[in-house]
Amino acid sequence: MEENKNYRLLIHGGVGTILKENMTAEKEAAYLKTLTKSLEAGEDILKNNGSAVKAVEAAVAVLEDSPLFNAGKGAVFNSDEKNEMDASIMDGSTLDSGAVLEVGTIKNPISAALEVMKHSPHILLAGSGAEKFADQQGCQIVDPSYFYTDSRFEQLQIAKETGEVMLDHSGDNKSAAANFENGGTKFGTVGAVALDANGNIASATSTGGMTNKQFGRIGDTPIIGAGTYANNKTCAVSCTGHGEFFIKNVVAYDVSALMEYKELSLIDAANYVINDKLKNQDGEGGLVAIDAKGNYTMCFNTPGMYRGIVGSESPIEVEIYQ
Amino acid sequence: MEENKNYRLLIHGGVGTILKENMTAEKEAAYLKTLTKSLEAGEDILKNNGSAVKAVEAAVAVLEDSPLFNAGKGAVFNSDEKNEMDASIMDGSTLDSGAVLEVGTIKNPISAALEVMKHSPHILLAGSGAEKFADQQGCQIVDPSYFYTDSRFEQLQIAKETGEVMLDHSGDNKSAAANFENGGTKFGTVGAVALDANGNIASATSTGGMTNKQFGRIGDTPIIGAGTYANNKTCAVSCTGHGEFFIKNVVAYDVSALMEYKELSLIDAANYVINDKLKNQDGEGGLVAIDAKGNYTMCFNTPGMYRGIVGSESPIEVEIYQ
Repeated sequence: MEENKNYRLLIHGGVGTILKENMTAEKEAAYLKTLTKSLEAGEDILKNNGSAVKAVEAAVAVLEDSPLFNAGKGAVFNSDEKNEMDASIMDGSTLDSGAVLEVGTIKNPISAALEVMKHSPHILLAGSGAEKFADQQGCQIVDPSYFYTDSRFEQLQIAKETGEVMLDHSGDNKSAAANFENGGTKFGTVGAVALDANGNIASATSTGGMTNKQFGRIGDTPIIGAGTYANNKTCAVSCTGHGEFFIKNVVAYDVSALMEYKELSLIDAANYVINDKLKNQDGEGGLVAIDAKGNYTMCFNTPGMYRGIVGSESPIEVEIYQ
Repeated sequence: MEENKNYRLLIHGGVGTILKENMTAEKEAAYLKTLTKSLEAGEDILKNNGSAVKAVEAAVAVLEDSPLFNAGKGAVFNSDEKNEMDASIMDGSTLDSGAVLEVGTIKNPISAALEVMKHSPHILLAGSGAEKFADQQGCQIVDPSYFYTDSRFEQLQIAKETGEVMLDHSGDNKSAAANFENGGTKFGTVGAVALDANGNIASATSTGGMTNKQFGRIGDTPIIGAGTYANNKTCAVSCTGHGEFFIKNVVAYDVSALMEYKELSLIDAANYVINDKLKNQDGEGGLVAIDAKGNYTMCFNTPGMYRGIVGSESPIEVEIYQ
C-alpha cells in the first residue's frame, strides 16, 4: 500500500531544433518557469490523492494558458489567420477517452476533451459542434481574439513570405513546421502523462497545429492511438512532433502494443518507436510516457524538447536541450 | 511470378442486427446487387493489373453512390438535418494515408481521401478546408441536397421522436445506432480491402456517421489506425461498427500489431480483436482484412454484415447474414 502512494508526472512543451545558442537567458528562464508552474499544478492534484486524469488536465491547462507554447493562448495561426486547436485525453484505468479538434473559442481545449470523455458517449467532437458541447458543459468560452499574440502573427507573416505553406511541403520535414521560434523548426504541441497514488495512469495532449496550415489540416494530437494513449496494463503516452508521421505509425498505441505483445520495457518500446522507426522515416518528434509501476521516459529524436518531471520522491526538474 | 498474379478484394457495407425475417426479397436483392457491382468495379481494376489502392477506392465509390449504404448518397442525417461524411484510405506498400472528416459537398469522400493521400503532405483534412482541397483537386462537388433521401430523413425523424439522441446514449450500444433499417440496430459504414497482382495491399472506409449525431461527433472511419490501416508487412483492415469502441481499442492497427509483434495469423488476430476484446466490452462491429499472401477474413460479432469477396481464382460471393 505504501508503495502505491508514489506518484509521478511528466510534461512536454514540444520538440524541434531548439538550440541554446539561439535562446536568450530571459526566454529560457520564461520557458523553465512555465514548465515548473505546469508541474506544480499537476503535482498539487497528485499529492492530494487526485487522479492522474485531473493531474494531466491541470498540467496541460497551464501550458495552454501560456503564450510560449503552441496550444491554447499560444496557438499558432493557420493560413486564414485563425487559431484552430486540437486536444485529447485518455484514462488508462478505463480506456475512456475524449478529444476535440478544430476548436477556436474554448480557452482550454484540454478541459473540453475531458468533458467529452466524462459527459458524452462519444470520444471525438469537431469544430463548432465541439464548441457548443464545451459551452453546455461549462467550459470557459472566449472570443477568438483571446488567442491573438504578436509573436504568432509575425510567424504567420514570415511563413507566408517564405512560402512555407504546408501544402508546398513534400516530405522535407526540415521546412515543415514553419515555426521559427529560436531560429529553428519547432513542433510546439504540449502534453502530460501521470501516475497517481492509486496506481492509475493517464495522458493528455494539446496543440495549435502548424503555422500557416491550410485546408483544415489535423495532426495526431486529437487522435487516440496516435498522439495520446493510456492503458494501466501498459503505459500512458503523450506525443509531439511532425503529426503525419505519428498518425501513420500510430505512435502512442504502438508503444503500448510493443509492451503488451512483444514484452518490451516501456523505455525500449518508446526508444524503438522514436529513435528507430520514426527516425528511419525522417519523422521528427518525441514523447513522454509512464507505466503503472512508475517507469518513465522522455524520448525525442530532435535537438531539444521542452520537458519536465516531478515525483513523490523527487523534486521538480525542467529541461530544454538534449 | 505467376503466384503473385493472384488478386483478391473484400468489401463490407456495415454490420448490425440485420435479420432475414426483417428483410423483403426485393430489398435483399437490391443489397446483393449493389455489393456485386462494387466488387465488379474493384475487380475490373485488379484484373487489369491496377493497384490495390485504386481498387478499394473504386469499390467504395460504388457503395457511396448507392442510397442503400450509410456513406455518400446514402449518408444518414445528423441532428441539424445535415449529412456529414468521413472517409480514409491507406496504401500498405508505402504507409501513405489520406482522410477527410465532416465533409458535406464531396460526392465521393473516398476519392477526396485518396487525393489527400496523393497530392498533399497531410493525412487528415477537416470540414470546409477538406472540401476546398477536394474541389481544387478536381473531385466532384455537389449541392448538399444531393445527399437527401426520404428513407434517411424518416430515420432522423424516428430517432428524434424516440429520443435516440446520441448524447443521451450512455453505454447501451443496443440503442446507439439510431439506424432503424430492417427494424434493428445497424452501423452502415462501408469499406474495402484488396491485394493486387503486384502483391500490394490497401484499405478504404467511408461513412455518414450516426443518425441524429450531435456536436460534430466523429467516429473511427477517418482515423488511420482505428477504422482503416494497411501495411504490406502485416495486413489491410477496414472496420465497421460502434466507432467509439474502435477508436479506444485502435482496432485496425491492433490487428496489425498482433500479427507483427505477437506473430498471430491474420485470422487469429482479427478474431481476437472482434470476438474477444471488443465483444467483452459490448463493442459491436466487424471488419474485413487481407494480408499480402492473400489470407483474408470477414469477421463480425453482430447478427449480420453486408459483405462480399472476389479473387482471381474465385467468383464473386456476396452475403448478409451470419
